[in-house]
Amino acid sequence: MSLYEPTVLQFSKMLNNFEVWLDAAAEHAKSKNFDVSVLLTSRLAPDQFHLIRQVQAACDQAKSTAARLAGQDPPKHADTEVTLDELKARIATVKSYLATFTPAHFEGAEARAISLPFLPGKVMTGVNFLHEMALPNFYFHATTAYAILRHNGVALGKQHFIGGLTLADA
Amino acid sequence: MSLYEPTVLQFSKMLNNFEVWLDAAAEHAKSKNFDVSVLLTSRLAPDQFHLIRQVQAACDQAKSTAARLAGQDPPKHADTEVTLDELKARIATVKSYLATFTPAHFEGAEARAISLPFLPGKVMTGVNFLHEMALPNFYFHATTAYAILRHNGVALGKQHFIGGLTLADA
Repeated sequence: MSLYEPTVLQFSKMLNNFEVWLDAAAEHAKSKNFDVSVLLTSRLAPDQFHLIRQVQAACDQAKSTAARLAGQDPPKHADTEVTLDELKARIATVKSYLATFTPAHFEGAEARAISLPFLPGKVMTGVNFLHEMALPNFYFHATTAYAILRHNGVALGKQHFIGGLTLADA
Repeated sequence: MSLYEPTVLQFSKMLNNFEVWLDAAAEHAKSKNFDVSVLLTSRLAPDQFHLIRQVQAACDQAKSTAARLAGQDPPKHADTEVTLDELKARIATVKSYLATFTPAHFEGAEARAISLPFLPGKVMTGVNFLHEMALPNFYFHATTAYAILRHNGVALGKQHFIGGLTLADA
């Protein structure tokens, strides 16, 4: 088992799914004759992030998880996206960054000491960081982004959240 | 790396977190003088599950993921919970079931062939099933349950979603 597949491959697939959700949002806005920016700035609670910021947060978790498990510094992104096209470009940038990794970058990642910016002086092992922090946080933002769209009537279902599966014949 | 920690330990911690969320829901309902069943039957979209069903679905994903990776048949639960106490009892039942597993039950789990009820004739490896299906689906229901409460004003924050972390000194 390597930490490459559950990070690089799974995050890349989920970012592909995000693009499907955003295309469905654009289609819904067009069919109802309102500007898609209404959806992009919608939120489920006044003190939660709106859709753009949920997607940015998921993008940041994906890139930083891969980078830190591989012992690299993640690229910085300025969170300036406003339009749907800009948000899709941000997603594409992160997908391109994830595509620079190979399984070899993740050798020994499970035992790598990962520091947390909000817990100075403490570290987690790579595998604990992935399962206790990175994946829960990534899926938190992914699900909240999806839920904002579902709450506003966009036609999506669970299969658009899960995406394709790696199957073999039984 | 074993699949015991990312399933048994992480699901158990998240189920503890669910109890915190439900206690906060009860406190919120009491402070606003309404019945907590209003929250338990709230949903984010007319064609999404309400809170009770989100928790039941997360409980089922937790128990079935552990069971199937360990080559066991999961216990059946009838989804009859209506009250807060009944829902907390369901969570406790699943936590008790998870506590019956040891790391030894998960030896070879990563390569075990896992069938999917909705994809007859196909299988996934244990590790792919965990990362492509079980964890995304568990966190989907966990985050949606949490979001239903946040949407309705319950005082929760990200730390109540993530819970405690396994830390060491740097």
